[in-house]
Amino acid sequence: MMEDGIGMPQTPRSYDPRSFEQLTYHDRLSAFDDGSDTPRAYLERCLEVIAEREPVVQAFAALNEEGAREAADASGERWKAGKPLSLIDGMPIGVKDLLETRDMPTQMGCEAYRGNFPKRDNAMVSALREAGAVILGKTVTAELGGSHPGPTTNPFDPACTPGGSSSGTGAAVGAHMVPCGVGSQVGGSIIRPASYCANVALKPTQGALNRGERQGTSMSTHGFQAGSIEDMWRASIAVARRAGGDRGHFALSGPDTAPAARQPARLIVLETEGWAETDQATRDAFTKLMERLSAAGVTLLTRRDCPPVEVLEQAIADARDICNAITAWENRWAHRNLVDQSPDGPSTRLKEGLAKAEEMTADDYHALLARRAAAQAIHARVGPMADGAILLSAPGPAPLWPGDRPGEPLAPRPTGSPVCNFGTSMLFAPAATVPMMGVGGMPVGVQIMGLPGEDAAATAMARWLLESVDPVVA
Amino acid sequence: MMEDGIGMPQTPRSYDPRSFEQLTYHDRLSAFDDGSDTPRAYLERCLEVIAEREPVVQAFAALNEEGAREAADASGERWKAGKPLSLIDGMPIGVKDLLETRDMPTQMGCEAYRGNFPKRDNAMVSALREAGAVILGKTVTAELGGSHPGPTTNPFDPACTPGGSSSGTGAAVGAHMVPCGVGSQVGGSIIRPASYCANVALKPTQGALNRGERQGTSMSTHGFQAGSIEDMWRASIAVARRAGGDRGHFALSGPDTAPAARQPARLIVLETEGWAETDQATRDAFTKLMERLSAAGVTLLTRRDCPPVEVLEQAIADARDICNAITAWENRWAHRNLVDQSPDGPSTRLKEGLAKAEEMTADDYHALLARRAAAQAIHARVGPMADGAILLSAPGPAPLWPGDRPGEPLAPRPTGSPVCNFGTSMLFAPAATVPMMGVGGMPVGVQIMGLPGEDAAATAMARWLLESVDPVVA
Repeated sequence: MMEDGIGMPQTPRSYDPRSFEQLTYHDRLSAFDDGSDTPRAYLERCLEVIAEREPVVQAFAALNEEGAREAADASGERWKAGKPLSLIDGMPIGVKDLLETRDMPTQMGCEAYRGNFPKRDNAMVSALREAGAVILGKTVTAELGGSHPGPTTNPFDPACTPGGSSSGTGAAVGAHMVPCGVGSQVGGSIIRPASYCANVALKPTQGALNRGERQGTSMSTHGFQAGSIEDMWRASIAVARRAGGDRGHFALSGPDTAPAARQPARLIVLETEGWAETDQATRDAFTKLMERLSAAGVTLLTRRDCPPVEVLEQAIADARDICNAITAWENRWAHRNLVDQSPDGPSTRLKEGLAKAEEMTADDYHALLARRAAAQAIHARVGPMADGAILLSAPGPAPLWPGDRPGEPLAPRPTGSPVCNFGTSMLFAPAATVPMMGVGGMPVGVQIMGLPGEDAAATAMARWLLESVDPVVA
Repeated sequence: MMEDGIGMPQTPRSYDPRSFEQLTYHDRLSAFDDGSDTPRAYLERCLEVIAEREPVVQAFAALNEEGAREAADASGERWKAGKPLSLIDGMPIGVKDLLETRDMPTQMGCEAYRGNFPKRDNAMVSALREAGAVILGKTVTAELGGSHPGPTTNPFDPACTPGGSSSGTGAAVGAHMVPCGVGSQVGGSIIRPASYCANVALKPTQGALNRGERQGTSMSTHGFQAGSIEDMWRASIAVARRAGGDRGHFALSGPDTAPAARQPARLIVLETEGWAETDQATRDAFTKLMERLSAAGVTLLTRRDCPPVEVLEQAIADARDICNAITAWENRWAHRNLVDQSPDGPSTRLKEGLAKAEEMTADDYHALLARRAAAQAIHARVGPMADGAILLSAPGPAPLWPGDRPGEPLAPRPTGSPVCNFGTSMLFAPAATVPMMGVGGMPVGVQIMGLPGEDAAATAMARWLLESVDPVVA
């Protein structure tokens, strides 16, 4: 297998979880301390990878190389003086192009926002800058965080989607362009691209990281994809300490460095409505992974042998429809304004979603909120039976997506299926994904879900998986 | 007492709650039905009052007379055809200039937003238009809903503040310019101006009316001030049915017309931290009003004779500081962007508030959220001891405010004190105010607070007060 200087396979569909090395930042800090490496040199290495791979991967909607170099040099001065602002001082970060940034446009993957440049920083971006991070670029998002795709391709096979809606962040991290990037998730927009691009990621408890100006929906979170649990956690906690959570919410809490790996004693195994869509090779790989967990001494509770788990499965069995309808209603007025202002700007996909939302009534929405609350109540009762739950991060590797075909109906999921992710989103639960499988030479992740607020515990168990369980190749 | 055609006193400081007639809309519907009146004629009467009084009152930041006439004519056609869109079809409404409107600028009382014209409709504005209401103008707001005042004067004495931050809505309704207007409240921005301007108003349960794009803070609500309980309720429920509540919240619920008056059997009497600031004449008037309630058969529970009430009083004793600090933290990133983008735009008042917010940590905020949650838990336990709570809507009539004096420290409360309103806001509780007192020729309101979700019950009791208890003149 041909590899570049930092372990990236050059042949499509040759991902192997046993040998793939992810890009990391945390392990350079001692080199910054002793002067053998600098944040500027680190950044330049990232820029080299970008120069090489961006023509195919197309992860970025905007880059601010000059600003990034200035920020990296300033960081270098701080490390030299022994006064870094945080453990992520100097870390190059890509920010999903839904979040406002004062130094780059925010075009949200939507023609209606072409050239939009509000010159403001989202609270998370502001916190990252306060912590000394280097805001290198804006990463491609599916249109407005929905399902209409941008140009980004999968770093392990350019014929495949990188996932969405945090497409560019997933691909940029997976392609070694940056060690860490910001995503956001309503359905599966953090965990799914991380699964497709061999990244780790934390979709935090609902409300645990301040969304700043982006608080219009009740079920979206901001979160990080990264090449390592350590970088993922350090970035998350650095933001939480500085910008807090959403209005009215406690922020993510835990240590400054990633929680130590922790083997769970018991895990709930969730199929979710995703299992029915999962291909046989991925099912077999996941089954084998569960056998390895059992062999390591983890007790697994499933819907077949544990009735409360079946109740939880049933509670989230319609999560896809519930999440989609709740979010469609919540976006209804903003999308109506957008279509009225710029009739040709939004995609047909967006307009079709708006039309459905405009058929809903307030009481339809209330009924959905009641069902969501019921599912959360069930999770609160069933969740404590185990240390957490384990489930696929996606129903298989990244699918091919050749583009919409003129005259044919629109593909419903051009960025792949978020079917494995609606449950955790609807439960407002933290979910940490780790790349534990290679299926047909492409990555597939598994996620650990905790109860709301248990982000650190879920991270500790995901870390144990990554460090102590042999990944599965199928 | 000189009066104009619709009962407005012409002499300053001659308000008398026994004779003052408020402007109403609901009682014109039968005249629209039989053709003896039309929404256009109603609108023209409003415009006449505006032409006469606006030079002194200065309630409006923008007016759309042409658009309003078109909307009123369209409404007239619907009434003529017997097909009104709702019970508020044709109602002229003023909208606080914090909410986006597609046909008027949204300048938010802040120099930094001068000329801001986003051409979008806030969800509430959109719902009002759907219901056939006539969006007549944007009403003056204190800067960004804070405490830096606009030019509006009190309709009962131009030397006094109309209250804030919904200054223009309060004054426009009080001056008979419109029968109903939209306000918003974090501290006391709906209830206080209603109290100062002799209006009724409902500050709904937190989240009960969709704030649309304005969901950045955890403790603000949109709500209506009106000349009558009936118009106030009809407008509120019309919006709730069409735009629902905030994301994740059930909307206001109840009948299409105002709930019938209901005499409470028991009421908690709350002093709040406002009592210490209340002038003697207002204290005496409130005490006399409580005597009238007792005489009518209402059992009153006070902090002196009922220990749980004292617990509730203590729980909200620091509500002012808690609310102000929570909101300052939540506005911190938006205000920082504003100051960075437009250093001379925001007022010194706003910048001083931002400086305090930037000294806070995420854990300071968490501590405040915990205290707020504790107060809500106490309210949930103590509230059911009675049908509701009664308290002053302001610690006296509207104060004089001659303006900032160059070289002197800024007045802390140029729009009057919201001290009586922080408790209900912090408890996320509905509060309905009615003008039950005249003190020194100026109006003062009392409010009925319910448990969260009990908006209709609070409204029913406020209606009973207004219809069945003699107001007090002091």
